Amino acid sequence: MCRVRGLCVIGLGLIGGSVLRAAAAAGWEVWGSSIGSDAEAAATSGYRVLDLPQALRQAAEVEALTLLAVPLPAVDEILTAVHEHAPTVRLTDVVSVKAPVMEAVLRKAPKARYIGGHPMAGSAESGWEAGSTELFRGAPWAISTTVSGGDGSMDIDVWSEVATLALDCGAHVVPVGPAAHDAAVARISHLPHVLAAVLASVGAEAGPLALTLAAGSFADGTRVAGSEPELVLSMCEGNAAALLPALDEALGRLGAARGAFASTRSLEATITGGHAARVRWDEHRARQAASGIPVHIDLHAPEAPQALLGVGEQGGWITALQAGVAIATVPRSA
Amino acid sequence: MCRVRGLCVIGLGLIGGSVLRAAAAAGWEVWGSSIGSDAEAAATSGYRVLDLPQALRQAAEVEALTLLAVPLPAVDEILTAVHEHAPTVRLTDVVSVKAPVMEAVLRKAPKARYIGGHPMAGSAESGWEAGSTELFRGAPWAISTTVSGGDGSMDIDVWSEVATLALDCGAHVVPVGPAAHDAAVARISHLPHVLAAVLASVGAEAGPLALTLAAGSFADGTRVAGSEPELVLSMCEGNAAALLPALDEALGRLGAARGAFASTRSLEATITGGHAARVRWDEHRARQAASGIPVHIDLHAPEAPQALLGVGEQGGWITALQAGVAIATVPRSA
Repeated sequence: MCRVRGLCVIGLGLIGGSVLRAAAAAGWEVWGSSIGSDAEAAATSGYRVLDLPQALRQAAEVEALTLLAVPLPAVDEILTAVHEHAPTVRLTDVVSVKAPVMEAVLRKAPKARYIGGHPMAGSAESGWEAGSTELFRGAPWAISTTVSGGDGSMDIDVWSEVATLALDCGAHVVPVGPAAHDAAVARISHLPHVLAAVLASVGAEAGPLALTLAAGSFADGTRVAGSEPELVLSMCEGNAAALLPALDEALGRLGAARGAFASTRSLEATITGGHAARVRWDEHRARQAASGIPVHIDLHAPEAPQALLGVGEQGGWITALQAGVAIATVPRSA
Repeated sequence: MCRVRGLCVIGLGLIGGSVLRAAAAAGWEVWGSSIGSDAEAAATSGYRVLDLPQALRQAAEVEALTLLAVPLPAVDEILTAVHEHAPTVRLTDVVSVKAPVMEAVLRKAPKARYIGGHPMAGSAESGWEAGSTELFRGAPWAISTTVSGGDGSMDIDVWSEVATLALDCGAHVVPVGPAAHDAAVARISHLPHVLAAVLASVGAEAGPLALTLAAGSFADGTRVAGSEPELVLSMCEGNAAALLPALDEALGRLGAARGAFASTRSLEATITGGHAARVRWDEHRARQAASGIPVHIDLHAPEAPQALLGVGEQGGWITALQAGVAIATVPRSA
């Protein structure tokens, strides 16, 4: 296609602002809408910032992809505006949970052609000023294969547009089902925030001497406790159904460690198990960086959604889209 | 004093090897002893490496400071050799717990003039090759004010020598009592290792999709789980008396978070409390970096040990020693 792709970004904080910049750098025609100081900061940086109805009407008019980059508690309100001003727009998001956003779309903007997304990048900073075109370089970007409404079959047109956006931002596309996504991020993204908060509190309670002696392990273990609490809360609380069992698993493991330590003075199972797990992750990433098993998926084939999901379940990702074919790699086994 | 200071380092891994390099760069006459590949690597790098009896006899002969840089389980054996070859030597260490090492010195090398130390620096790497002269630059280096044997009064000569070594390595000296040190590091150094192990295990159990999506928060939260398990175990298990209550506090906080989350769907107390705690630490470090309240302590005054401990308890540290006076700064109150 030779047409210029259009992108309307609602919410110009760290993530939305970075997508806006990266997409513009990749040649998309972009505009956005935001509240507070982010709107002014983006406009001052030279980007087109409109009010919400204007931005959405513009998206409807030129059939632009619309990206919701607001915290979960703000999603309903934005979707109501989508339904009013751009009811059938192609829609995606960057919210850190996928099942609740899908439900919200079905409730509030049922005609929108929605494919959920979640780029796995960020920082402890927030707001437009913290963003950059490079934020997503090499990062995984989860994209759902489930569509809202209709017969449940995947809308290739929308899916390709969202995947192209992620690839143009420098990310790799990881196809996910909403429930599998939410269970995974509960363990590798939301639980880390809860543990960081617990560690920070235990450390700070220990007084000035402990705060002076605290170094690398405390700095790393508490880094994400520095994130905006409102953003962390909306992320964790929006994923309660999946986070609760992850918390229980962490509690169970920590309780077992405590019990073994008290009775045998040994932490061997905990520490060697944790080390093996971390090494497994390092090896997983190394296998991803190495040339994996190439998989080509014809997006117009009826089995495309299952094939895409299979790539994600095996730890693979999509690195390019060419003429309706997704080019994926799956890491080789250890 | 114009005499060249001598330093004998037993154990040439990451920490011992870095002290050897940094002290040599600061003009100390250094030599070491080590087992395994570290000995060969240090010798290849041009340092003098002797066998253990030789190294200790040399230290006794020239009245060099001797530094134990071995894991806690190896301390008893080294102290037995110290008692045989250099019984009255000035002795310090870098082991991550202080009370158990003090007890071991009293048992195994009761004539040694021992002041415990603990530089708060490291990395997930280990071994001679991972070391550098810059490892301790700006880091806190805890030094005990308690001496072994005698009337319990502080040996100014040994204390000054150990503090000078730390300062020459670029560190700041934090005076500590052994029990206060062990309680503090349980919370800010050993607990982070246990939580990192738990997080790594929960994440890796979640399968390839989760390992692919894992990004910054998982990377930071599990980084120290990549450390050598043997070193982590000897560190944590050697501090069991202090680590157990720290584990209980973490379990209590995590359990409270889980309970509140299950019943109210809110994690607000946990997340906002953790954020406030992390901010407190950031502010503490900023106040340390800013010019604090200067405190000068005459090391020959009878109240010197209490004055030194007071600096540590208030979150301060010593930045220089001049003519028997410790020059400290204590952070200004928030």
